[in-house]
Amino acid sequence: MICPLNRNPLNPSFVDEVERSFAQQPVMNLIGASLSLVEPGVVEITLPSRADLAQQDGYVHAGVITTIADSACGYAAYSLMPAGSNVLSVEFKVNMLRPARGVTFIARAEVIKAGRTLTVVRADVFGIAENAERELVATMLATMLCLQT
Amino acid sequence: MICPLNRNPLNPSFVDEVERSFAQQPVMNLIGASLSLVEPGVVEITLPSRADLAQQDGYVHAGVITTIADSACGYAAYSLMPAGSNVLSVEFKVNMLRPARGVTFIARAEVIKAGRTLTVVRADVFGIAENAERELVATMLATMLCLQT
Amino acid sequence: MICPLNRNPLNPSFVDEVERSFAQQPVMNLIGASLSLVEPGVVEITLPSRADLAQQDGYVHAGVITTIADSACGYAAYSLMPAGSNVLSVEFKVNMLRPARGVTFIARAEVIKAGRTLTVVRADVFGIAENAERELVATMLATMLCLQT
Amino acid sequence: MICPLNRNPLNPSFVDEVERSFAQQPVMNLIGASLSLVEPGVVEITLPSRADLAQQDGYVHAGVITTIADSACGYAAYSLMPAGSNVLSVEFKVNMLRPARGVTFIARAEVIKAGRTLTVVRADVFGIAENAERELVATMLATMLCLQT
Repeated sequence: MICPLNRNPLNPSFVDEVERSFAQQPVMNLIGASLSLVEPGVVEITLPSRADLAQQDGYVHAGVITTIADSACGYAAYSLMPAGSNVLSVEFKVNMLRPARGVTFIARAEVIKAGRTLTVVRADVFGIAENAERELVATMLATMLCLQT
Repeated sequence: MICPLNRNPLNPSFVDEVERSFAQQPVMNLIGASLSLVEPGVVEITLPSRADLAQQDGYVHAGVITTIADSACGYAAYSLMPAGSNVLSVEFKVNMLRPARGVTFIARAEVIKAGRTLTVVRADVFGIAENAERELVATMLATMLCLQT
Repeated sequence: MICPLNRNPLNPSFVDEVERSFAQQPVMNLIGASLSLVEPGVVEITLPSRADLAQQDGYVHAGVITTIADSACGYAAYSLMPAGSNVLSVEFKVNMLRPARGVTFIARAEVIKAGRTLTVVRADVFGIAENAERELVATMLATMLCLQT
Repeated sequence: MICPLNRNPLNPSFVDEVERSFAQQPVMNLIGASLSLVEPGVVEITLPSRADLAQQDGYVHAGVITTIADSACGYAAYSLMPAGSNVLSVEFKVNMLRPARGVTFIARAEVIKAGRTLTVVRADVFGIAENAERELVATMLATMLCLQT
């Protein structure tokens, strides 16, 4: 990151909170995604490729790539929010850069700007080949909303 | 639409082509989505709500909403492309407007500008309540690429 | 609009407020833009074409088109906000659909969803030819923030 | 950049080409922007703050910030295109992260993915204070089109 970001988590149990919330997203179970990294302002979600996630050419559907990128962005934002918050996706934009091929996909989200109400997050989604080479298949720029519950 | 759009399909068998391609998207089967309308430059996809499509609050995940909106946009663009084309998502932006609740969701995509290489498409996603009331839950603005195969 | 929108202005003097705020945007004077319509949730800004607004091919620069679209979106949102609010652009996405040519440009913004904190607005920018024909040159999808001052 | 990018310029005189094209954008002269860096896949544009570029609160208008970010993205893409190309903005999305204050603004664009037809570029816009501190005020994610002329 070019810009210094205050990544001091306001909620000391943010890792537990992210894991608990992630476990409550049934769609992650449906597509087979799991949480692979939770740090202040940074979250990674891993998705093994599967034939039933594909679009018409056999690549993973852009909507599935978006699903893991959006959740990664949401939890990266959530990791910096105060206890008792909820996070909602306001909007996101995704560029599909290459066909989504790989044996596994990793969506890595990093907070760019954490605000009291709005948090802006960037995510890159990589396809990992059998030989462990990474290819950037998509990038997301997202806005997340903090709701006090 | 405020602007006149030439919606003469270049491919007379565009309906068959869209249906055939849609049937080749395994992810549509996984989430339970079906094609409900195919007209020149306009496509609708219908998705019954299901508990395993939800995020942490019980609403359908933004990524699932995006999946049907993206496919609707892609096929709306594809319906105007010449025979022998393939369609790829270049990018899209989604605004989540309300929690995605409803017994069914309909993504309705309409081409705004059809070009030889790039086609710009807008999609609205509605949640349909039991009493048949419609609520706009998301809107997408997408760019699609025509590949000559 | 496909979806019913409550467009009852919360601020009875919203027209005056929009006009007053617009007059305080020096950049509108620099580029020669003026406010041409203010209704609840709908605002139009008109910009006569000028050689010094062009990019390298002689068309009006995408950033100038964005400038009038963004202000139109901001004021369309502002027209529905309570008295004593300020409006800020959270983010916007613009598709440039055709070269920005015309003797005049009109950015027409319409609120899609007005929330207490966030308002989502769509704008279309038209180029008007000498023979009065309209051509859609760009479309914006924007998120605006309401600040209580 | 996390991902390796082939940044070998296809056009050996790309610096001259970018400078020549920039000089042909009258709007850059109108707002007072200048080209401050041209490398393969990376371009910076510098804009001194000026009262007549402001919106209603005295900050530089989001549209002006977009103008320099869009041109920086376009020329970053152009720097990697073959001789005889022209570059067009397909679309961009901008997040305004902080009020655009500073004595100078720098838009720094970097190509993420250079394709034959489409190039995806990211730009960050910084406000530079009198004490030389940098603040990230906006970030853009853009798609550029290569036209063979």
